[in-house]
Amino acid sequence: MSRVTIKEIARRSGVSPGAVSYALNNRPGVSAATRARVLRVAAELEWVPNTAARQLSAARSETFGLVLARSPQTLIEEPYFMGFVGGVESVLAERSYALSLQVVADLGAELATYRKWAAERRVDGVIVVDLRVGDPRIPVLRKLGLPAVLVGDPALAEGMPCVWTDSTAAMNAALDHVASLGHKVIARIAGPPEFGDVWIRDQAFDTAVRRLALTATTRHTDYSAAQGAAATREVLADRPTAIVYDNDLMAVAGLAVVQTLGLRIPDDLTLVAWDDSALCRITHPTLTALSHNIVGYGAEVGRRLFDLLAGAQPQSHLYSTPLLIIRESSARCTP
Amino acid sequence: MSRVTIKEIARRSGVSPGAVSYALNNRPGVSAATRARVLRVAAELEWVPNTAARQLSAARSETFGLVLARSPQTLIEEPYFMGFVGGVESVLAERSYALSLQVVADLGAELATYRKWAAERRVDGVIVVDLRVGDPRIPVLRKLGLPAVLVGDPALAEGMPCVWTDSTAAMNAALDHVASLGHKVIARIAGPPEFGDVWIRDQAFDTAVRRLALTATTRHTDYSAAQGAAATREVLADRPTAIVYDNDLMAVAGLAVVQTLGLRIPDDLTLVAWDDSALCRITHPTLTALSHNIVGYGAEVGRRLFDLLAGAQPQSHLYSTPLLIIRESSARCTP
Repeated sequence: MSRVTIKEIARRSGVSPGAVSYALNNRPGVSAATRARVLRVAAELEWVPNTAARQLSAARSETFGLVLARSPQTLIEEPYFMGFVGGVESVLAERSYALSLQVVADLGAELATYRKWAAERRVDGVIVVDLRVGDPRIPVLRKLGLPAVLVGDPALAEGMPCVWTDSTAAMNAALDHVASLGHKVIARIAGPPEFGDVWIRDQAFDTAVRRLALTATTRHTDYSAAQGAAATREVLADRPTAIVYDNDLMAVAGLAVVQTLGLRIPDDLTLVAWDDSALCRITHPTLTALSHNIVGYGAEVGRRLFDLLAGAQPQSHLYSTPLLIIRESSARCTP
Repeated sequence: MSRVTIKEIARRSGVSPGAVSYALNNRPGVSAATRARVLRVAAELEWVPNTAARQLSAARSETFGLVLARSPQTLIEEPYFMGFVGGVESVLAERSYALSLQVVADLGAELATYRKWAAERRVDGVIVVDLRVGDPRIPVLRKLGLPAVLVGDPALAEGMPCVWTDSTAAMNAALDHVASLGHKVIARIAGPPEFGDVWIRDQAFDTAVRRLALTATTRHTDYSAAQGAAATREVLADRPTAIVYDNDLMAVAGLAVVQTLGLRIPDDLTLVAWDDSALCRITHPTLTALSHNIVGYGAEVGRRLFDLLAGAQPQSHLYSTPLLIIRESSARCTP
């Protein structure tokens, strides 16, 4: 194809080549009207930037896939998920890759999606989230030979490449914190029990509860704000003086519930969130949270999948250990 | 392919067919261990649910595309965007469609992506956001014959199918509200001037300011929290008694800025946000906002693209007029 030049676009738009360059690269320095005119002319001439010209002849699909076997509501309300996807996209954008995101009803439909994507060569690789114990997706992905990076603990990944954060260390930090404040009766609002990471946290929680001689209850939920609020209401019957949440969305929902019931935070109840999106800093009081860089985590997963395509050996990578950030929702237990 | 039956999976898993059905459909009623075992056996037998079996033989790509020529940070911090994508996914999930999401640097790269997707039949249609005045994407999409639904005003869509919300009516509602509270000096923190919807709001704002005999300034930003905070700092030099924001993220960032400066909301300053994610209800004080159902908006756009593929005539659809929800950030002007 004969290449359309900046000069020709400039001539037809009636502006300088410099202005065309500014407009095409979306930089300030030209008016909105000029930018629109230049882009229009460029479009009419079917101008293609160099990187895009390369794309057109690519053999690969230049797409990674991510299937989510959760409610579409997760995408809407989970700051964790938005941050993770944004982090993945930040790495994909550098290489002009797309992320094919499919929401399905269950793992069966997820497996069918992988088979379809592999058969039709729709993706170069997949990012697998919400690992299960004895995850049925692992043998399928192996059989399909579909490059995959698993997001979760090597104990769940069965030798597949994975990127993980240390949930056991994080849970210990949370319980050491509440125990050091004198709390003895603790509740935990957990994610779905079938998720491997929740299972790891379950073990870590039980071990720490015994080590610290605490009284504790756990309620499992689907990670949603609605179930987080309902579970908070339920565990209050056990009169805990501290509640530890498996995500920040449920912690914010739980905060609203206890405030509505007239309990004061932190005087009556200490709250600890997991994940630390902006949510935890804009509530009153602000929330103590296990903080990790979720955007960076997503970006790391994207990079590892590119590494895998480039021939890297499958490995597990510890991305981080969530760090406890103490904020206004923490206080000494006052009996 | 010979179909694997539920009965066979039950036999090999050593559980009842009922338990297999619960496990495969991700319903409660079986333990996590049983669920994992059943899914593993199903995977080994390459069991495929009926709907997925249908998918495997599909001729279409069963993928819609959405290119975002903004910073990847938008995905991370903009509740609007994730709500919109979640709404789209909720409709796509019903039909087992994926959404291919690509973040690009500029409109030139966006056009190249459409050309690539069309040439390689990677998507059945595209959702086009952030319409410009004289949008250069419109002639390209027409030429490519790529089914597209534009998200924005018919005044910008040039006869292409579009779904829109009435920004002019919404801006009038916001300014009538602040004027009715006695405010005379108003600031507006707006989105990027090259976006058609911002341009429509610019016109509506100027017209309403004249009609209501207000004094006003507008600062354009890139819609980010950082620029929203910086612009809020700047406009305070004009001593406004009310600020109207083009999204909720900037309003929350602006609220933090004015509170840090010791101004009281709403006593010293009335704040009005645009879009109304949960953010507006968890700040203290809660924020008056132009509310619309963004998830529903995304879902409507997804449905219209399916309609278009099914042969519907290209049309423009008014989805809603944002409704002003008055909350704690509004108060009478006290000179």
